[in-house]
Amino acid sequence: MIRIESAEDPRIAPYRAIRERDLVGREGRFIAEGKVVLNVLFSARRFEVESALILESRLSGMAATLALAPAEMPVYVASQEVMDAIAGFHIHRGVLALGRRRDGGGMDALLASLPEDALVVALVGISNHDNVGAIFRNAAAFEADAVLLDASSCDPLYRKAIRVSVGAVLKVPFATAPDETSLFDTLARYGFTQIALSPGGAEEIGDFRRAGRTALYLGTEGEGLPTTLMARMKTMRIAMSDSFDSLNVAAASAIALHRLWRGR
Amino acid sequence: MIRIESAEDPRIAPYRAIRERDLVGREGRFIAEGKVVLNVLFSARRFEVESALILESRLSGMAATLALAPAEMPVYVASQEVMDAIAGFHIHRGVLALGRRRDGGGMDALLASLPEDALVVALVGISNHDNVGAIFRNAAAFEADAVLLDASSCDPLYRKAIRVSVGAVLKVPFATAPDETSLFDTLARYGFTQIALSPGGAEEIGDFRRAGRTALYLGTEGEGLPTTLMARMKTMRIAMSDSFDSLNVAAASAIALHRLWRGR
Repeated sequence: MIRIESAEDPRIAPYRAIRERDLVGREGRFIAEGKVVLNVLFSARRFEVESALILESRLSGMAATLALAPAEMPVYVASQEVMDAIAGFHIHRGVLALGRRRDGGGMDALLASLPEDALVVALVGISNHDNVGAIFRNAAAFEADAVLLDASSCDPLYRKAIRVSVGAVLKVPFATAPDETSLFDTLARYGFTQIALSPGGAEEIGDFRRAGRTALYLGTEGEGLPTTLMARMKTMRIAMSDSFDSLNVAAASAIALHRLWRGR
Repeated sequence: MIRIESAEDPRIAPYRAIRERDLVGREGRFIAEGKVVLNVLFSARRFEVESALILESRLSGMAATLALAPAEMPVYVASQEVMDAIAGFHIHRGVLALGRRRDGGGMDALLASLPEDALVVALVGISNHDNVGAIFRNAAAFEADAVLLDASSCDPLYRKAIRVSVGAVLKVPFATAPDETSLFDTLARYGFTQIALSPGGAEEIGDFRRAGRTALYLGTEGEGLPTTLMARMKTMRIAMSDSFDSLNVAAASAIALHRLWRGR
């Protein structure tokens, strides 16, 4: 437990100006916020944890969570004033940790490790942090085995995506592909049946029965999935009102993943 | 079409300092943003529209939308600089309108007008603007007949709730009750079967069959619905993973409303 008295203390440099940190070279590091997320982080095998930064007034409630962390992890403690000066804005919850991604070997290693009846979610062009976080949360709730993202989708380790996911991005394994063509080709090589969720889909998602490995593609709300990509797979729709046929992509993922859940 | 040259012009006073306007007396007025939302507003019977404020560069793309508005409605046009000065921040989309709610006669009048197989969504304690907006969007997509809110839920006419709903709060009728007890009693008087969605619910929502009028209650993620309220009705759950039993309330509403949709 190390008391921090100044925002300039070099030991807490990675916590400085948190809002800007998503934009510049993070070298695999990320900021996790909140007790629930820290519980997930400290239990996750795919991530290392470098330190925690806790508001002094929150410390007493954090004992059980901090007990999950590696014994050698430094816990920095700061007053509200110092913490806000470090972060660059008012840190309401006062519970932060600095994690680092371990090298997992990329998409091939991830896909090779999945079971024979795996379900993966494939995101193409989902650049909104809230949507990516919300999709991961739904993927965790309905036990998808992995999430794959093309390079134009947002990094799941962005602070806001982690927060919205309530830690699910630290729980559901993910990997990134350079583009949707390599995503499709790699999934095909690993024996995945690939289906696209689209408002104009040919079949009802509720009628689809999983057999073997399945990949569910989700695209942006505006443009949707690229037509050249959809031409290569079965397209599925969620039937809804004719007069308001507009569903947020995270809401659509909730409905589809609930339908595809093997626990059903 | 009226050109506005100064942020101090009294004609655009209701658009000033938009961010703060949700917090103070709005007298039934609200700001709608974006072309899609304005299309819904101009077609809605429950709202009057007082004016529009459009960025000069967006005007040419707005002809079809503005043709839906009342002929006497003033259309104010401003440069990006003037518009940002009016709003108090950078207005990226540049398409705003000022609406006003008509007096609809409250919850009794609304419930009396609903069909015999009506589905209503009842929100208790949902104070987050994004969640309220997202739930309205799902309610519109799956043709709920109305949304009812207790006084502790957020006003659906808050700017961000309207935007997240993509205009659905202007499409799905709503009314507010002082508390959940009067909400329950009023719905009972109008013959509604009332069910509560809760992680610990007794039955699977997918097993519920609508018969007559149905009200689906949703509560906050943290505390959930009040136990005294849940004791008065059937409780329903969405089955999910044991190891990550956490679903956002908007995602839960998507799954439940999709299951309850009469179009299924």
